[in-house]
Amino acid sequence: MRRGLSNTHDRLAEHDLIAAIRARVPAAPGWLAVGIGDDAAVARPERGALEILTTDAIVESIHFDRRLSAPADIGWKALAVNLSDVAAMGGTPRLALLSLGIPEGVSRSEIDELLDGFLALAAEAGVTLAGGNITRSPGPLFVDVTVTGYARPRHVLTRSGGRPGDELYVTGTVGAAAAGLGWWQAGGSAAIDGIDACVARHRRPEPRVRIGALLGRNRAASACMDLSDGLADAVRQIAAASGTGADVDAALLPVHDAARTWFVRTGADPAIAAATGGDDYELLFTVPRRARGRLATVIRQARGVAVTRIGTLTREPAVVMRSGDRVEPLPPGFVHF
Amino acid sequence: MRRGLSNTHDRLAEHDLIAAIRARVPAAPGWLAVGIGDDAAVARPERGALEILTTDAIVESIHFDRRLSAPADIGWKALAVNLSDVAAMGGTPRLALLSLGIPEGVSRSEIDELLDGFLALAAEAGVTLAGGNITRSPGPLFVDVTVTGYARPRHVLTRSGGRPGDELYVTGTVGAAAAGLGWWQAGGSAAIDGIDACVARHRRPEPRVRIGALLGRNRAASACMDLSDGLADAVRQIAAASGTGADVDAALLPVHDAARTWFVRTGADPAIAAATGGDDYELLFTVPRRARGRLATVIRQARGVAVTRIGTLTREPAVVMRSGDRVEPLPPGFVHF
Repeated sequence: MRRGLSNTHDRLAEHDLIAAIRARVPAAPGWLAVGIGDDAAVARPERGALEILTTDAIVESIHFDRRLSAPADIGWKALAVNLSDVAAMGGTPRLALLSLGIPEGVSRSEIDELLDGFLALAAEAGVTLAGGNITRSPGPLFVDVTVTGYARPRHVLTRSGGRPGDELYVTGTVGAAAAGLGWWQAGGSAAIDGIDACVARHRRPEPRVRIGALLGRNRAASACMDLSDGLADAVRQIAAASGTGADVDAALLPVHDAARTWFVRTGADPAIAAATGGDDYELLFTVPRRARGRLATVIRQARGVAVTRIGTLTREPAVVMRSGDRVEPLPPGFVHF
Repeated sequence: MRRGLSNTHDRLAEHDLIAAIRARVPAAPGWLAVGIGDDAAVARPERGALEILTTDAIVESIHFDRRLSAPADIGWKALAVNLSDVAAMGGTPRLALLSLGIPEGVSRSEIDELLDGFLALAAEAGVTLAGGNITRSPGPLFVDVTVTGYARPRHVLTRSGGRPGDELYVTGTVGAAAAGLGWWQAGGSAAIDGIDACVARHRRPEPRVRIGALLGRNRAASACMDLSDGLADAVRQIAAASGTGADVDAALLPVHDAARTWFVRTGADPAIAAATGGDDYELLFTVPRRARGRLATVIRQARGVAVTRIGTLTREPAVVMRSGDRVEPLPPGFVHF
């Protein structure tokens, strides 16, 4: 970790903070030759594997609101969105770099709490914090994370491997994060059973680390992507990259119960609201007919993660959602805040 | 590349921008299995090598001022500061991820220019842009870059390998970036021969990619670090990590000529101003007596990069700078803006 802050006092505070972070990181695994505290981290690659690399930032007032998300939630989420990307490639995450842009008024104890959240998820996922940098921010709190992981060459899942006839599956439930955020933005006082779980999903998404790696390792999926930008966007991306269309059945979408109640309360179509809501960090993946047995193995090994079939990739290029007799284009986008 | 911006319109613009970036990146090298456009990049590790990973952000009004640095300068510099870190480890850079936080009012053509600068240096350094993310920023322009590179296990240079008696060397000249910035901040009208080169050093530092890798490969240096936070800071860091003191001779510092003129003009001690000025991105390294021949080989192969001996690591723990008969503690810090 390094990089100067703008004056001597801040720079000394930065050295101090880096030393404090270094002291909190668990003992380095054998593959990490150089960790926090030098110009860069040095790692021994996993033998026989390809390396997976992703970077993703969460920015105050774009991706989170400090009145809703505690510092520990923010640290957790910044890592979670990156772990989700590695999972979507069928990989196992291993190493993280943390880049912080800290505005005035954020206290040292808040930074410590942010690290608490980051390191709690890192421990859960078996990921080592190996470096990063700290700078002042003249504007928002900015948390940018890079995660690397690995997968055997034939286990990597891209977005482009889907074929017409492959079935579309999604993990867990959808719409929860959008409903939780919407409920809070509407005042956070409407009594809705289970809405707390939706707010928690926005604050601390649980990346599908284990099932992502299992889908890759078992060669159960032909394509995979995470739902950071919503299910509708993910279906469109996989179809476009795979050169197919897609047919999604609204009735099959595993909409979170409390989210459904909230969407109905606000007059929205629950399927459309859930499909266009972002931030769920579930996985969307396609399974060829011949791989159904392998999917059953993955589901058995995934320890209770729900997996729901929601539709099919099609030869026709249209990407549609059907509700009973009605067939309409899948809505294009999602609205974050 | 991915990550949603806050509304549908922005997200479509983001997809469009990512497609445009993808179209501009040169053909992927053989080791890059998946580049821009999926959840993550996938790369084949360099055989028999350790991987070097670093991340570093430059933030508007902390590290650059958009009235001084053109968009292309900002893109260049964001990559340069990371290449400098890989060079300081004795590594060869290979892959970059680019994370952009873009404020309102930054136009599409400015982003294109930022990419021009980034890709120009990437081409010069043989680095492939393999992914990243784009988000809106409610505040400053934020450019965070991750670079990975590689080095054979015995060629990695850390900060901690110095021993008492090793000689301290620095590449190029020091003080130029600080002088260029100071001159501009003072109005930019004082006539000083060569000050343009100092401003250029602030805008577009030239990371010491080649000599860094040569120092590692030839095993000429026992420790190495870059001068992002100034020479004085780097000497202190290497001494602390190596468990030594250091004795730097002010008269030996290769202060840039125009910078010296500027420092004298402002009443500053040129050696102190140059040693505490940041942003030079030269390399500081230590050479054991027995490796002097190898250093001569490196200098021959480095094609005209100046290398200057400036002092010695000492058994005594103090870190000092001597000017004639005066011996004083090396000043601690540097002031960016």
